[in-house]
Amino acid sequence: MIKIGIIGAGRIGKVHGEGVTYGVKNAVVTAIADPYLKEEITEWATGLGIKACYKDYRNILEDPEIDAVMICSSTDTHADISIEAIRAGKHVFCEKPISQDLNKIKEVMEELKKSNVKFQVGFNRRFDHNFQAVKNAVEVGKVGDIHLIRITARDPQAPPIEYVKSSGGMFLDMTIHDFDMACFLSGSQVTEVYAAGAALVNPDIAGVGDIDTAVITMKMANGALAVIDNSRQAVYGYDQRAEVFGSKGQIAVGNDALSTAILSTADGVTGEKPLYFFLERYMQSFSREVSEFTDAIEKDAEVPVDIEAGLQPILIAVAAKKSLDENRPVKISEIIF
Amino acid sequence: MIKIGIIGAGRIGKVHGEGVTYGVKNAVVTAIADPYLKEEITEWATGLGIKACYKDYRNILEDPEIDAVMICSSTDTHADISIEAIRAGKHVFCEKPISQDLNKIKEVMEELKKSNVKFQVGFNRRFDHNFQAVKNAVEVGKVGDIHLIRITARDPQAPPIEYVKSSGGMFLDMTIHDFDMACFLSGSQVTEVYAAGAALVNPDIAGVGDIDTAVITMKMANGALAVIDNSRQAVYGYDQRAEVFGSKGQIAVGNDALSTAILSTADGVTGEKPLYFFLERYMQSFSREVSEFTDAIEKDAEVPVDIEAGLQPILIAVAAKKSLDENRPVKISEIIF
Amino acid sequence: MIKIGIIGAGRIGKVHGEGVTYGVKNAVVTAIADPYLKEEITEWATGLGIKACYKDYRNILEDPEIDAVMICSSTDTHADISIEAIRAGKHVFCEKPISQDLNKIKEVMEELKKSNVKFQVGFNRRFDHNFQAVKNAVEVGKVGDIHLIRITARDPQAPPIEYVKSSGGMFLDMTIHDFDMACFLSGSQVTEVYAAGAALVNPDIAGVGDIDTAVITMKMANGALAVIDNSRQAVYGYDQRAEVFGSKGQIAVGNDALSTAILSTADGVTGEKPLYFFLERYMQSFSREVSEFTDAIEKDAEVPVDIEAGLQPILIAVAAKKSLDENRPVKISEIIF
Amino acid sequence: MIKIGIIGAGRIGKVHGEGVTYGVKNAVVTAIADPYLKEEITEWATGLGIKACYKDYRNILEDPEIDAVMICSSTDTHADISIEAIRAGKHVFCEKPISQDLNKIKEVMEELKKSNVKFQVGFNRRFDHNFQAVKNAVEVGKVGDIHLIRITARDPQAPPIEYVKSSGGMFLDMTIHDFDMACFLSGSQVTEVYAAGAALVNPDIAGVGDIDTAVITMKMANGALAVIDNSRQAVYGYDQRAEVFGSKGQIAVGNDALSTAILSTADGVTGEKPLYFFLERYMQSFSREVSEFTDAIEKDAEVPVDIEAGLQPILIAVAAKKSLDENRPVKISEIIF
Repeated sequence: MIKIGIIGAGRIGKVHGEGVTYGVKNAVVTAIADPYLKEEITEWATGLGIKACYKDYRNILEDPEIDAVMICSSTDTHADISIEAIRAGKHVFCEKPISQDLNKIKEVMEELKKSNVKFQVGFNRRFDHNFQAVKNAVEVGKVGDIHLIRITARDPQAPPIEYVKSSGGMFLDMTIHDFDMACFLSGSQVTEVYAAGAALVNPDIAGVGDIDTAVITMKMANGALAVIDNSRQAVYGYDQRAEVFGSKGQIAVGNDALSTAILSTADGVTGEKPLYFFLERYMQSFSREVSEFTDAIEKDAEVPVDIEAGLQPILIAVAAKKSLDENRPVKISEIIF
Repeated sequence: MIKIGIIGAGRIGKVHGEGVTYGVKNAVVTAIADPYLKEEITEWATGLGIKACYKDYRNILEDPEIDAVMICSSTDTHADISIEAIRAGKHVFCEKPISQDLNKIKEVMEELKKSNVKFQVGFNRRFDHNFQAVKNAVEVGKVGDIHLIRITARDPQAPPIEYVKSSGGMFLDMTIHDFDMACFLSGSQVTEVYAAGAALVNPDIAGVGDIDTAVITMKMANGALAVIDNSRQAVYGYDQRAEVFGSKGQIAVGNDALSTAILSTADGVTGEKPLYFFLERYMQSFSREVSEFTDAIEKDAEVPVDIEAGLQPILIAVAAKKSLDENRPVKISEIIF
Repeated sequence: MIKIGIIGAGRIGKVHGEGVTYGVKNAVVTAIADPYLKEEITEWATGLGIKACYKDYRNILEDPEIDAVMICSSTDTHADISIEAIRAGKHVFCEKPISQDLNKIKEVMEELKKSNVKFQVGFNRRFDHNFQAVKNAVEVGKVGDIHLIRITARDPQAPPIEYVKSSGGMFLDMTIHDFDMACFLSGSQVTEVYAAGAALVNPDIAGVGDIDTAVITMKMANGALAVIDNSRQAVYGYDQRAEVFGSKGQIAVGNDALSTAILSTADGVTGEKPLYFFLERYMQSFSREVSEFTDAIEKDAEVPVDIEAGLQPILIAVAAKKSLDENRPVKISEIIF
Repeated sequence: MIKIGIIGAGRIGKVHGEGVTYGVKNAVVTAIADPYLKEEITEWATGLGIKACYKDYRNILEDPEIDAVMICSSTDTHADISIEAIRAGKHVFCEKPISQDLNKIKEVMEELKKSNVKFQVGFNRRFDHNFQAVKNAVEVGKVGDIHLIRITARDPQAPPIEYVKSSGGMFLDMTIHDFDMACFLSGSQVTEVYAAGAALVNPDIAGVGDIDTAVITMKMANGALAVIDNSRQAVYGYDQRAEVFGSKGQIAVGNDALSTAILSTADGVTGEKPLYFFLERYMQSFSREVSEFTDAIEKDAEVPVDIEAGLQPILIAVAAKKSLDENRPVKISEIIF
């Protein structure tokens, strides 16, 4: 059994605590650390059989029993803790994004070169049943050569302005998953991006220099064109769709719902709304991504989302922001890394 | 061009007048007859280019220019007019049912034997795009040997009690189409029927000795089981579905709608209701059935729904009524013809 | 934490072992018993943290630490072990059917009257997300008065003849779930049943006196009509659908699939097949039904599926068999209990 | 009855000949003109009851009996014939595009100012049942303020290179309908466009300076963002979808098919492909647009698609081509008109 320490016991830290406990066969969480350690957290940890609860994550890094850490702390600490964990010889599962600061990512990469630990980035949607079905169809050639990729990602509700302010902007906070999906589904890389955006949901978002609605066009290295549309607020729920279209056909995935029920009345024929948000929609993917991480540790194999893969969506997000600001297509090669 | 006279200018007579004019390439309606000939009817006829309007259908039968008649008068007159038309040497397209009186049907069959005219019964649903798709899949073997047939037919609104009284009962008036569909889709015949029924929509319907809701089980000559469910009132519209299930799979058809539009709001994900009633739903099938009738005349070929095919659903309906009355399965062979 | 002993470590016993461990918050499995206790079973138990593994289930009944037992042994032992467990003061969760022998069920009922333990029957489909959605819609009045219920249940593959021989017949083995569903969804009881059936999938099934294809019509106490269609073999997978139709509309549920993926190619527009069989399709419902059982123990509340509810589908199955044998509708009141 | 002369008896001329004859109540086609008048055409015309067939369209313009002309000749002749027809006092229905030459369009507009005739442009998709459903939902406020518009339009098969050469480019030939749709569905105008495109279907298309695959982003005057994706070849058929997303929800339309049939077999669950191409898909819209044209003549009302509306998609197409060539967003105001 691989012993895992979770650093950061906020929402995503808890998701992983439960995901590992109930869904990862070859791993167990033995410790958590959170600077704001409250009774509520220790109770939650005890309920899952997690033995140690710390305020300081260094307790985890210093524990020789622990094989791997999952970094679920605030984004601005991801890189530094990653470096410390690598130095401590722990395998690292780092939540996305690795950092909003490209230099910090470089430092992590440098540190990794000197080490033998596994490093995986938390792009969980790659492990989702729907997107896996698209990926599988593409890989076995069902759509032929890829011509077009369409991704729709709309949140059910815009976040509070305070969150928006420190989010790094919609592209780094939200679209980053879609940038990753464009790379994952195409098996290729983005070379150029053009972003159109506006604050249509909430003008206050414009007030803090961000947008809530966007259409982003990408040119891929394999010649395909890709397009993402985003909104911070789809009142009907979390809208998560994708299509890959090619020379032999198209594979498309729609939304999941709580049931297949269809109600037919004098008012119309009505089905369920999409599952509300990412915890409902992507829950299974969280334990699947960690299962692949712990399998990679166990078998000394490659992790499915390495630091290079984790870097790409950040570069695209930075280029997309530049495109939005300058209203012109921006090449990824323009972003200095 | 085949010259057609339409006898009866009620709802279905008008449907055929327009269907032939706009949808049948090798035929033209040259006369109509209706005992209650009103100005509204003659205007409608003129608009379609129909030259002669009579009160007495015998004017049509006596017109040597007319090749074929379509009998769209009230059900109780179908058989007698059919016999007169056959004697006059006219090809006959007779609306369903041929008669509610089995002896009358026998008389028509006898008359037909002495003649060379074509005789087609108006089971239009056989020419519907959805049911044709089922039939085609069955015929080319896509479902293998047939095991189960399911037919759902629900009207959007119960008819007035006065109509119910003279309708011959729900089985002869409404389910007759579904009995025909069971035969058509299976390519087999019904051997035994069990009917359960009740007046759940409107108790007044029970008051006049009829039902408005039914489940009818049939055993087919080819070994398959078939089941029909009926209601006189589906508040969401005209519900017309069918499935054929067999050793290699299933083919199923659902309802048609006015558009493919899906509205997603905070209240749900809502599509269009089924097309309201048979005029909206089956319009195309009316001109298609007549096209096949006129083609059969032109090529001296067999009509697609002959008098034998038109008789079967009536026998099943009579057996179903007996089953309902006696609460036991009834063999078709019990019905004396 | 409620301590549970599982009696019988076959397929369904294991399903419950895992369901309780990973999905029931207030319970833990502390012992299992199986007369054919093999290493494979003890390893599986150890992996789940189950401490005691016995050959003799009496070890479980005699353990004062254990609060409740789950009877997952062969059907012919359900009733006797139930009685012993009730006498030992254990709460009982009994897999369906309680017994194929009505007298045995009576004995369990008598024993229960003298006791205070909870007794729940394993009709897991009541806890399925799709059927729950139908039930909820019916209960809040979305379909109005119920007129028609349609249930389709088709297995992906016919069982081996040896299994069929000892199954008690298709109605007791397979349709029993659908009989329960008719009661559950309608909130009413069946008063009369008519069954048509045949061995169309495999003639050997007829050779052992059973059928593999059926259409069963039921009259409900509330006036509604219900119909079930069954097949032992749908080559496209496990087909599990239901509709409730009433004065205000219809609620219908279809099949679940592995993903929402739709592949469009020159060959057609193709989606996923239904989830293969009951383990894939109904997995969640197994832990949900046990959660409600342990909640009822914890709160001393009524169990959601009591022995009366567990009896009804057996009575209907017996009546359906009689109907099939005698080819006539059979009243439930004809079945002596 | 409004008397119509059709100029040009190619594919679209015939579509309109039949559309008017069978689907427009207050109009009749009395003459056609085609410079390559062949027997096949005169036979077709006779079959529809069209009395006069000319080589020279001036015969139509000079006929005082004719109220309106439909210009269905080659694109390069649309503007000049329009001007002649306006001068002859005929109402004009002009197929799209009015011209590929903006100066020519200006001339037609000038001529129209001096006249009282109606002038309608053939953007038939506005009259399609699916797009009408979207438009209606938007107009009654069901989606609230518009944030995003997504249009997918993919042809089933790339045209021959010879056609591509003289087509004016994909934007003017194919995307023009989608540009019109963005304006129509939003009730707004495009202010800026960014086009990404490539020849992925057929490299020969690049050889003649055109593309076959594109993603086009538009900024609308009302603040919304719109995106079109195009392909010249979807092997699964004619893919015609649209979505309008806003503050209160989303309305989306999918493809139409020949039937609702779903085949479930061991290979999957397969539905029909989209209707093959525009003649199958949009047939009804052609007679509807002419009905509104003839109604506008009869009632002296405004036509639904006037020359201003017909001009917009051409301006957008020209801007899109400039954007593609210069790889930058282009404002519509940059296009000199």
